[in-house]
Amino acid sequence: FSSSTPIKATLFPGDGIGPEIAESVKQVFTAADVVIDWDEQFVGTEVDPRTNSFLTWDNLQSVLKNKVGLKGPMATPIGKGHRSLNLTLRKELNLYANVRPCYSLPGYKTRYDDVDLITIRENTEGEYSGLEHQVVKGVVESLKIITRKASMRVAEYAFLYAKTHGRKKVSAIHKANIMQKTDGLFLQCCDEVAAKYPEIYYEKVVIDNCCMMLVKNPALFDVLVMPNLYGDIISDLCAGLVGGLGLTPSMNIGEDGIALAEAVHGSAPDIAGMNLANPTALLLSGVMMLRHLKLNKQAEQIHSAIINTIAEGKYRTADLGGSSTTTDFTKAICDHL
Amino acid sequence: FSSSTPIKATLFPGDGIGPEIAESVKQVFTAADVVIDWDEQFVGTEVDPRTNSFLTWDNLQSVLKNKVGLKGPMATPIGKGHRSLNLTLRKELNLYANVRPCYSLPGYKTRYDDVDLITIRENTEGEYSGLEHQVVKGVVESLKIITRKASMRVAEYAFLYAKTHGRKKVSAIHKANIMQKTDGLFLQCCDEVAAKYPEIYYEKVVIDNCCMMLVKNPALFDVLVMPNLYGDIISDLCAGLVGGLGLTPSMNIGEDGIALAEAVHGSAPDIAGMNLANPTALLLSGVMMLRHLKLNKQAEQIHSAIINTIAEGKYRTADLGGSSTTTDFTKAICDHL
Ligand SMILES: CC(C)[C@H](C(=O)O)[C@@H](O)C(=O)O
Ligand SMILES: CC(C)[C@H](C(=O)O)[C@@H](O)C(=O)O
Repeated sequence: FSSSTPIKATLFPGDGIGPEIAESVKQVFTAADVVIDWDEQFVGTEVDPRTNSFLTWDNLQSVLKNKVGLKGPMATPIGKGHRSLNLTLRKELNLYANVRPCYSLPGYKTRYDDVDLITIRENTEGEYSGLEHQVVKGVVESLKIITRKASMRVAEYAFLYAKTHGRKKVSAIHKANIMQKTDGLFLQCCDEVAAKYPEIYYEKVVIDNCCMMLVKNPALFDVLVMPNLYGDIISDLCAGLVGGLGLTPSMNIGEDGIALAEAVHGSAPDIAGMNLANPTALLLSGVMMLRHLKLNKQAEQIHSAIINTIAEGKYRTADLGGSSTTTDFTKAICDHL
Repeated sequence: FSSSTPIKATLFPGDGIGPEIAESVKQVFTAADVVIDWDEQFVGTEVDPRTNSFLTWDNLQSVLKNKVGLKGPMATPIGKGHRSLNLTLRKELNLYANVRPCYSLPGYKTRYDDVDLITIRENTEGEYSGLEHQVVKGVVESLKIITRKASMRVAEYAFLYAKTHGRKKVSAIHKANIMQKTDGLFLQCCDEVAAKYPEIYYEKVVIDNCCMMLVKNPALFDVLVMPNLYGDIISDLCAGLVGGLGLTPSMNIGEDGIALAEAVHGSAPDIAGMNLANPTALLLSGVMMLRHLKLNKQAEQIHSAIINTIAEGKYRTADLGGSSTTTDFTKAICDHL
């Protein structure tokens, strides 16, 4: 790719603050001379019978065709029997690995310095099976499903990621002392893959201990790979270490080279349309998308501009203690380019 | 009770560092003039067929008879098919609520000041059902079981605890956006109980968000009640905020007034017998046991002596950056009484 060939990418602006922060991404990309032909997708207003979701068949086709996309926050419309939009995307597009880097932003102080963690979450099964039953009244069960297939591919992704990103260590997070069969299978897959990467240090850490150690000393960890729910929990915990989900990007990886970058924070309906939202998480997710497209130079430029704007501290949105609007913050980033 | 009537209580010294830290508790209690007639229980060397565990029928009877006890760390001997000792205790004694207070120890600095949290964990079911199946090769399932009975009793315990301890707020932690039926039932029980305590502020918090907020600002929380695995995770996270499991006590509550206080850290076989272990978690668990016995004066005396010894900083064990032996640290506490 060169920056002058327009690349087609799906864009889900999402709802709530989604359109505003998506607009910020477009402006910053344009200012950085990144020419993306955005294929904008809006979630349906009625349930599409082909997906049993407000997410339509066409929405899904767009990602499958473009193979790359960026997604803002989407709140699932209330109503029974329809799947969460986020989960529909993950399942239907087979987005099997969710990568969430969490690193301290220079200039934005939290209790922790120099955090630099990558959580890699299995994204399609586990506790998210949706299989739940009431057996007798007052006795309910949920099924956690772990498969060798999904565990192998996420483990393989994690070790390949570690290797290609110069990372030294992969920690597999589990509770196999209690769920010996499910988490045991997950660990066995990690063991098998780890054996193919002797240069990467590999360890297994029980989830409760992992959370305690992350809070005490996050520098103990590097890349973390884990089943779905543990990934949900630990990626939020890690985000908290560096300031929260408003500052952390993510990318979902599917088969056949599909990649959907995503801001995982909520749609913040209370401030929607008020030009108050912080676009950082979506911008940094956009940077991950550019790196995936091998537009590394532009990715680094944009990344530096975001980091420097926040570090400078003159333009910050309210969630970071500033009083800038979304558009002023965006303009400041463009000026840094 | 008066301090001169000997009270009978079960003591499981446990293994690894267990006997050393149990000895510390005995010495401190004696120095504080607390007369306990300890009924010492040692886990069997063979599996007891009546419990299918190394924990014997007699071990369990001791707690059922005395109704109160203190437990050190126990590592489950390796071998297939035998239940974890800790889980056997919880299940067989129906220890339905696990209470873990986490508070900043004055004088022991961490990244967080003034942490003051109580996690109350459902302790008998959920993800700890032990029900796991391989359906087809490479496809494994674990069952999470949530019952109305267990959810109601732990919710009731949590709100009663909040009320009797002057707490203002109870947060029910869940993932009902994904596990609508199981965690949904848990929440419904919390809702029902909350309605009977209008003076206690009640909120529901999704577990991922809870972990992020705990890390960013633990002062947002007060009492937290949750299903088993979330309690396992969040109580360790909270312990991490104040220095780790070596400093945090716990107590398990059963039906008919049974209470088993417990240090939840590991048995640290690497330093066992070396007079290096930190007895603080077991000592503070002992203090919880004394409060349960309404020996409040002695409980407060011992509590202050522990806190003051740590705050003074002259005698600290290696895990807290000092170089004191277990016995010197214990003696320092006794001297503070
Ligand atoms: C919104 C919710 C269904 C989702 C999840 O649980 O995966 C979110 O927490 C996330 O991490 O993307
Ligand atoms: C040792 C283990 C089985 C136990 C648990 O998972 O409950 C421990 O982590 C705890 O919190 O007491």
